[in-house]
Order: sequence, then structure tokens, then C-alpha cells
Amino acid sequence: MSNAVELQSRADADAIAELIAEFAAMTEPDSGPGVTRLAYTPLERAAHERFTEHMRVLGLRVWTDAAGNTIAERAGTDPSLPAIGTGSHLDSVPQAGRYDGIAGVVAAIEVARLLQDQAIEHRHPVRFVAFAAEEGARFGQACTGSRIAGGLTASADLDNKRDVNGVSIAEAMRSVGIDPAEVEDARWRPQDWHAFVELHIEQGSVLDTLGLPIGVVDQISGSTRFALRFQGRASHTGGTPMHLRADALAAAAQVIFTAEALAKDSRHHGTRITVGRLEVSPGSITTIPGDCHAYVDVRDVDSDRQRDTAAELADIARGIGRVRGVKVSVRPLADASPIVLPASVRNAIVHACITRGLDYRVMPSGASHDTQMISGVVPSGMVFVPSRNHGVSHSPDELTDETDLAAGVDVLIAALLALDGAAHESPENLENPDV
Amino acid sequence: MSNAVELQSRADADAIAELIAEFAAMTEPDSGPGVTRLAYTPLERAAHERFTEHMRVLGLRVWTDAAGNTIAERAGTDPSLPAIGTGSHLDSVPQAGRYDGIAGVVAAIEVARLLQDQAIEHRHPVRFVAFAAEEGARFGQACTGSRIAGGLTASADLDNKRDVNGVSIAEAMRSVGIDPAEVEDARWRPQDWHAFVELHIEQGSVLDTLGLPIGVVDQISGSTRFALRFQGRASHTGGTPMHLRADALAAAAQVIFTAEALAKDSRHHGTRITVGRLEVSPGSITTIPGDCHAYVDVRDVDSDRQRDTAAELADIARGIGRVRGVKVSVRPLADASPIVLPASVRNAIVHACITRGLDYRVMPSGASHDTQMISGVVPSGMVFVPSRNHGVSHSPDELTDETDLAAGVDVLIAALLALDGAAHESPENLENPDV
Repeated sequence: MSNAVELQSRADADAIAELIAEFAAMTEPDSGPGVTRLAYTPLERAAHERFTEHMRVLGLRVWTDAAGNTIAERAGTDPSLPAIGTGSHLDSVPQAGRYDGIAGVVAAIEVARLLQDQAIEHRHPVRFVAFAAEEGARFGQACTGSRIAGGLTASADLDNKRDVNGVSIAEAMRSVGIDPAEVEDARWRPQDWHAFVELHIEQGSVLDTLGLPIGVVDQISGSTRFALRFQGRASHTGGTPMHLRADALAAAAQVIFTAEALAKDSRHHGTRITVGRLEVSPGSITTIPGDCHAYVDVRDVDSDRQRDTAAELADIARGIGRVRGVKVSVRPLADASPIVLPASVRNAIVHACITRGLDYRVMPSGASHDTQMISGVVPSGMVFVPSRNHGVSHSPDELTDETDLAAGVDVLIAALLALDGAAHESPENLENPDV
Repeated sequence: MSNAVELQSRADADAIAELIAEFAAMTEPDSGPGVTRLAYTPLERAAHERFTEHMRVLGLRVWTDAAGNTIAERAGTDPSLPAIGTGSHLDSVPQAGRYDGIAGVVAAIEVARLLQDQAIEHRHPVRFVAFAAEEGARFGQACTGSRIAGGLTASADLDNKRDVNGVSIAEAMRSVGIDPAEVEDARWRPQDWHAFVELHIEQGSVLDTLGLPIGVVDQISGSTRFALRFQGRASHTGGTPMHLRADALAAAAQVIFTAEALAKDSRHHGTRITVGRLEVSPGSITTIPGDCHAYVDVRDVDSDRQRDTAAELADIARGIGRVRGVKVSVRPLADASPIVLPASVRNAIVHACITRGLDYRVMPSGASHDTQMISGVVPSGMVFVPSRNHGVSHSPDELTDETDLAAGVDVLIAALLALDGAAHESPENLENPDV
């Protein structure tokens, strides 16, 4: 099997760096270091608008769907064929880096430019997608835009999840002109889609450590998220002897410390447990904390172990609370199962790496991605590019070199064109490439 | 020894309850449950203004000193004699109760009313004091008003301590019309003062548990406060395996958990260690915390043990940080030594309890108080009244019955008059009351 279309030029690292910088400049004022562009905010919408402009300049048809996802389409030579897609998201966590999500959207823009500049024809329409609201940072629910596209989230689910200010997803949508009652219109139909490939930074240090330019993702971790509330007794730090305290923070600290040991336990090989957010009230140096909210993220590539670990940790927290006279309550926030990506798309990516002469590793993703949510509707794959700085992500120190991004785009466009060329072959033909 | 003046009536519990409610109504809008009236804010100043009005209605001369402390004076029959004082503070921690500090100021108002209504003469001038900025909650520095009065804090010290918004004490003072350059004018001279007695709620559960109406304080715990900063590496919760993390919150949690064990250790009998405030950054459920600030309060009635424990905990934190690859830095916030209150004033209070037929217990104070700061300038004592609700304080659940407050005022006024009557006796005569 080989790609019918020969590309005349490679991705332009400078153009990619310029696009990365352009999006990085769109951050909330006074939000500290890095990029802060939260889900369903005017700033996220402005980034989608910017993406739209880039696509319009390239002459593509662009629309924003009922969930706030923005989609640009380049027509194929055979209008009867379903679409091939690529893309990622434009929102960020607070004080994020410049690459998480953005890299995949910038890669989509660069793919579109290469196709246009070289007047490359493809049989399937190719769609370039900027998903909305991928980060779970604001509402505790990750991948809202792609979940809606994948049919995993409906209108009725949008009232329950709220941000720290009590704003629900539905309210946030309305505030940026999206009608939450209409989101089902954004649901993708399997018959409209042939394949989808997302480029993303690794957000880990495997590729950097091994000196490899490309990761080909075979499975994506699931994530179970819940909030633990510790209700003790606020009291004066001087007047209250140690044995008469019901210190909500001390209880939370014991749970956080124990959670870490649980994740490192040999029974939990590969489980990742994190408390990323902790709120302590009333928050005075002379008052024993009476109330504490801890937000827990449990990830695993094994679905059972993921849910069992979350349940075990909730039990441990309740037990610690009982001993301490601190009331512990558990509130589920979000739950996504791990998935295995189809070999057909994975093999197209592997083949593209070989064609391009780029070394690669097949590897799992610890982070959730939009691809996870749409993979039930469309056969999907992921291309990872290396994260430098020890794989740091969700941090201003996030770093991926523009040459790595360019190599990733080269693999991405080759994979997309291979999938286009393979349209009339059965996916089985792609199962065993000559590697 | 007996009190020369016979009081015709007792303190009025209803009047006291009304005053408590009046001050409790003065809280920052939208600040949550309880009372929030922080040091050197317009609201604290408004409370001082209210105190001033009450004292003016009683015909007393009132002034606010250069540190923002408000003082009312009732003249004595011998203008050559130094003053006897009583009072407490009007500021609060965030989401405080209604009694901490306020009880002592309300008691002072009720004492003034009783003296006026019954036209009681005293030889010494009697001063009623509302200290400014007693709570350390805003700036990490407790008892700023009384520290200035006691000569423990000077102008130059007011630029270093800052609140969460970076506002220094000096800047906060200026914003409410107090000139920090002039605060030395508020320093008390020993020759102007004969004795001082502060009424305060216990902020512990000893009196409530024993069913006693009065505590007579013999010593006050010292407090060493410092901030621990944990600098790890913010990173994606999915992409970063457990063994590659430098989780600032996990390090802080281990320190908090260990600090509690340290305070409960038998070597540390009576030591109280609390982390009352913890700030976690960036604070997203999908990001490993990269930066964490913990604010620690170490209290003890033993001065050496207090400092040694603080140093030991800082060392433990540094050790935990080293193992975890998390940088730990220690920043001192405040330090006050424990003190022993003079027997002369304590015995006057004990005598007043006996005269009033009220049972009492001589006890230490775990909390710091303004009395601690002025006791180097004027012989001082403290009257404790019971805290209900398990002794909860620095909390909206703080509770002291108005009848307990009235009993406390009865003891307070009797002690003040005893100290007035004892003016020409040597303090030694009070050392051994007939108990």
C-alpha cells in the first residue's frame, strides 16, 4: 500500500511557530503566567474566530456547530464519500502552556495550507476541527465539545456541572451565544465520517527520553473524577488542644498522602491519582480549617481498576473522616472509560512514519483527548509529538519544538492521504503494514 | 482586703446581648457566614466609631491614638494617679463569631455604663480601650494595635507584613487615614498606667466542660508563625507517571500530616501546630500542583519548646521536599513569646470572683491576646468567660451566653475597683488572698 499523492514540500516549522505564538497571545488579562483561555468563555470563542479566519483565507467552507465546535471543510473529488478529519481543541487550563490542544489545531491549519498550496486532490472531503471545551479544568467535565459530537453528552447533562463561581456549562454556553437546548444538532453521524486523526503533544516524557519524534497512540486512559468534602470544626488554633480538634485540612492531607501511596501500590501499576485542586475554608492562619474540598482525578488504562481504585479511595477517605470526627462526602464529577483505538487508523499512521523516515513508538495516552469521545462514531487515531522539559504539561513550562511539530504535521498529512487512498480497501488491509 | 465601693446593681445581660448583636451586624457584604471585619479596614474603623459614640453618650472623653486604638477615659478623683484600663479588640478573622474581642469591648462599655449610672467614684482614671488589628488573619501579624502600644512594633515594621492582595500594614493604615510614620505616638508609658484587665471568651472548652463561669489567666501561649512554600513541577495528571512527579500539594500534605503527629508527640505535650491556610496553584483538577503555600502556627506556653518545634517542623518540611524533588522555602511571619501574667492583678481578679460568689479556675490561655503585648508596660490580667459549642472560636458557631458575659462583667468591674482601692497598698498585699 502506498500513498497515491506525492507531496512536493514539507511542513513549515516557522509558519507553525508563528501560529502557536498567535494563539498563545490570547490569554485572560491578569491570569498569571502562561495561557488561560477557559472553556466556553469569550476568549475561547475569539480563538475559534481566529481559526475560522485562517480557514477562510485558505478558501475553505467553515461553520461552528451547535456545541461550539468549529469545522472547516475542503471538498473531495467524490462528493458521495464520508469525511476524513483532523483537529484538536483551543481552550486551556488556567496558567497553561502553549501547545496542549493548540498544537493539533495549528497542525490542522498547516495541513490545510499544504493541501491548498500544492493543489492536492483527495477523494474524501477533509475536515479540520477545533473542538470546544476540551479541558475539564473549568467544569470538572472534560471534552464537552467532542462528547456532544460523539453522542456522550446531551442537553440535559449541561445543567449539572458547574465552575467555581457556580456557573453551569449550559449557562456558560448561553453567555457566549450557544443554545444548550440545541446541542444534539452537533452530534456526528457515523455515515458522515471515514476516519479521524488528532495530533497532540505527548504530555509525558517517553518520546523525549527515548529520542523519538513520533508516538502512535494505541489506547487512551480513562478518568474518574470526584470531589471529596471534609467537614470538621473551625476553631481557634490556640484555644483548641490537638486531641479536641476536627481539622478538615489535616483529614484531607492524610487522604492526599494515602492516595499517593495507593497509586504507587503494586496492585495499582499504572494508576495515576492526583488531587489538583484543594480549597480550604475559612483560610486563616489562626483558625483550624472547618471545611475542605479536594478534587480527585483517577486515571488508568484498565477500566475496572480505574473504578475500583476510585471507590477504594473514597472508602479510605470516609474511614479517615470517621476516626477524626470529620464528615466526608463524595460527589462524582466525571467518568470516562479507557479506550483502545482501532488498528486500521493506527496502521495508517505507522505507515506514514515509515514513508517519512521517522522513527516512532506505539504507546498509550495517560491524558484524555477529544479522540476518545468521537472514536465510537468514527475510526480514530492519534499522533503524539514530544513534550520537552520532563514532559511538563498543563503548565507555562510546556514545550514542544517547532521542528517536532513540523515532523508531526508531515506524518499527519501522509496518514490522512493514506486513509483517503485506502478508502475503497477494507480496513483489514491496513491491519498488518510491512513493519 | 475588700472593695471600698459597693455596687448597687449587676451587669445587664440584655444590654450586653444588644451590644453584641449591634457589632455582629457590621460584617463585610458577601463574605459568607459569620462576621468578617478585618484589621485596618473601613469596617473595623466603623466599629471603632460605634464604640466612640457609645462612650460619648456616657459622657466620657474619647480619642483614637496614632495606631488606630480607641480609648475612652472616665476621670478619677485623684488626677495625679495613673490609669486603670480594660478593653479588647473589634476586628475579626474571616467568617468569625460574634464574641472574640467584641466581648471584651462590650464588657468595657457595660462597665462604663455601670460606673456612670451608679455614679461610682474611683481614684484612678479608668480607661476603656478598643485595640486595633488584633487578629493575625489579615497580615500574619497579630495584635498590631497593642504591639504598638506595648512598644513591640515600630513604624519600620509595618512595611514588611502583607495581606493576600499584597497590601502592607502601612498601606492598609494609610487607606483608613492612619499615618504609619506616626505610630510611635501611640506607645504607652509605664508611668501613665496602673493596671489593665481584659475580658475575653476562653476559645477553648475547659470552663464549659467543668461548668465554671470564670477563668483567671495566669499565662499566655506564645506563637511562632511561618509560611512554607513548596515548589514542585506542574504537569498533566494523565501524562505524568507517579514516580516522575514533583507534586507540591502531596509534599505539603505529608508535612501537614507529619506536623499533627509532631504536636501529638509526647515530647511536645501542650504544643499546638496548625496549618490554617493553604494555597494550591494552579488549582486545576487535571494539573499536578506545582506551587503550594502553607501557613503554619506553632503555639506553646514554653518559649524554648515553641521555637524548637517550629525549627524542627521547618527541617522536616525541607527533608520531605528533598526526597520528593520539591523545593521548600521557609519565611518567618511572626513570633510572640509566651508570658506569665503578674500575680498582683491575677489576685485582684480572684478576689473579685470570691466577692461575687463565682467559682473560677486559674488557667493558661492558648490564644494570644492584646494583654500579652501591653503586659510589659502595665501589670495586666485576664478574665475568661466560657465558650460553648465545644469551645469553638474563629467560627460562626462561636457562642458565649449573655448571662456568662454579665457574670464576667461583674467580676471585671469588681477587679477594676479592687485595683483602684489597692492603689496605695503594695502589690505584695494582693499576692495571697484568703483562698
